[in-house]
Amino acid sequence: MGQAIVVKVGGSAGIDYDAVCADVAGLVAEGRRVVLVHGGSAETNRVAEALGHPPQFVTSESGFQSRRTDRQTMEIFTMVYCGKMNKMIVGKLQALGVNAIGLSGLDGRLLRGPRKKAIRAVIDGKRISIRDDLSGKVEKVNSDLLTLLMDAGYTPVMSPPALSYENEAINVDGDRAAAAIAQALAAEALVLLSNVPGLLRDFPDESSLVPRVDVARAEEAMALAQGRMKVKVLGAVEAVQAGVGRVVLADARVEQPVRKALAGHGTTVQ
Amino acid sequence: MGQAIVVKVGGSAGIDYDAVCADVAGLVAEGRRVVLVHGGSAETNRVAEALGHPPQFVTSESGFQSRRTDRQTMEIFTMVYCGKMNKMIVGKLQALGVNAIGLSGLDGRLLRGPRKKAIRAVIDGKRISIRDDLSGKVEKVNSDLLTLLMDAGYTPVMSPPALSYENEAINVDGDRAAAAIAQALAAEALVLLSNVPGLLRDFPDESSLVPRVDVARAEEAMALAQGRMKVKVLGAVEAVQAGVGRVVLADARVEQPVRKALAGHGTTVQ
Repeated sequence: MGQAIVVKVGGSAGIDYDAVCADVAGLVAEGRRVVLVHGGSAETNRVAEALGHPPQFVTSESGFQSRRTDRQTMEIFTMVYCGKMNKMIVGKLQALGVNAIGLSGLDGRLLRGPRKKAIRAVIDGKRISIRDDLSGKVEKVNSDLLTLLMDAGYTPVMSPPALSYENEAINVDGDRAAAAIAQALAAEALVLLSNVPGLLRDFPDESSLVPRVDVARAEEAMALAQGRMKVKVLGAVEAVQAGVGRVVLADARVEQPVRKALAGHGTTVQ
Repeated sequence: MGQAIVVKVGGSAGIDYDAVCADVAGLVAEGRRVVLVHGGSAETNRVAEALGHPPQFVTSESGFQSRRTDRQTMEIFTMVYCGKMNKMIVGKLQALGVNAIGLSGLDGRLLRGPRKKAIRAVIDGKRISIRDDLSGKVEKVNSDLLTLLMDAGYTPVMSPPALSYENEAINVDGDRAAAAIAQALAAEALVLLSNVPGLLRDFPDESSLVPRVDVARAEEAMALAQGRMKVKVLGAVEAVQAGVGRVVLADARVEQPVRKALAGHGTTVQ
């Protein structure tokens, strides 16, 4: 068995899950080990609206945007990520002959880390501190469980929430969770798929794709990145520095998105 | 490691999940192997109402009631069972020091069986046939996966849906799924907890509890059973006939419900 490939597929509108699952199934059929990490943000927004608890987002002082996760939002988040999205993907993979197992960060303590004591946010130009937010970050990954399952022929399909050190479900960034999983498995590659073709020099001009980022010159890439792409580039650089072979930021909206990313389509961080 | 105990806790109103989880945690701390199977019917009804797709139930010609499971209902069912309920229970167990792993019947092909081609139902006295229902029954359990996880110290927390032979998510009866799991593991005991104290001679008079049912005289018990209890008694008898040590139908609304059931409180089928 070779090293694992960790594939993260975002939860934004326009993602072609059928193409991602078909591509993963092809790789698994060739004997590759794949861990698939998924999001669910667009669907969480939709269900939260339908249940009368519309989504809210906060922007940190350093410019990162994140979901405001109060207790009711965490319930909806868990329903959508662990119920609807996770089992939809597991079902698609099963239909393609892949013996997938869906797991959240709570299951088997797969993803653990600290809950943020407070999130500092900027709302209407004012700095505020939110103390009841159920969010945090991943510091530890139970790679033993992932290896146990992959050794037995199963393909893990994972999503947030993670489990805080105080045993609460916490919302964590999916891209950085995938990076932590790739690090823990010393993965050959981490592929971060979303609805853009990679890092763009002139966002949103898709012809301005940056094909390669050298981790030694990461500041330049970070300066180019807009919005969500900042977190992806940051996670990619951290992952490579921690021993992941390479990270590819690539387009989920195409046929064979994983193979194309592994072949160098997108932005390769190395 | 001894034989497993399979505990099924219903999804009706009034169930004390904290008491069930604390009791399971105590057994696991003593080195017992426990598989916890859960329901989620009351919460599914609530969420389905909130999402504008109210629950419907159909009664079969033989008098069994079941949830009408069209595609949208299956999506809601999966959100609630695999997302909300499953991760709520996994979170409670993790907080009690149990390394729980939540799994549906889709994951690792844990629960497989045929989808019903049609459900014959009686509505307003008329016999009708419903062909698009996503329901079926469990015929195969992947006990290898459960054993792999329990050998490594994990406690499986399971729920429907199951995976049909055509790889669709199908709604299956939770009590009979638990019975199939207990059979596959040759469990020492199967404990079916719900919001009644067991089989009642004079339903709903709780003082008329039937303490023991001999499988050789199952017809008498079946004749006494009302509504949902028919399925429980049927599943219990089948399980004992297939090699499960004993089945106890017991009350989930008390402290230490599992230990009390194992000590003989409730209706023991043997």
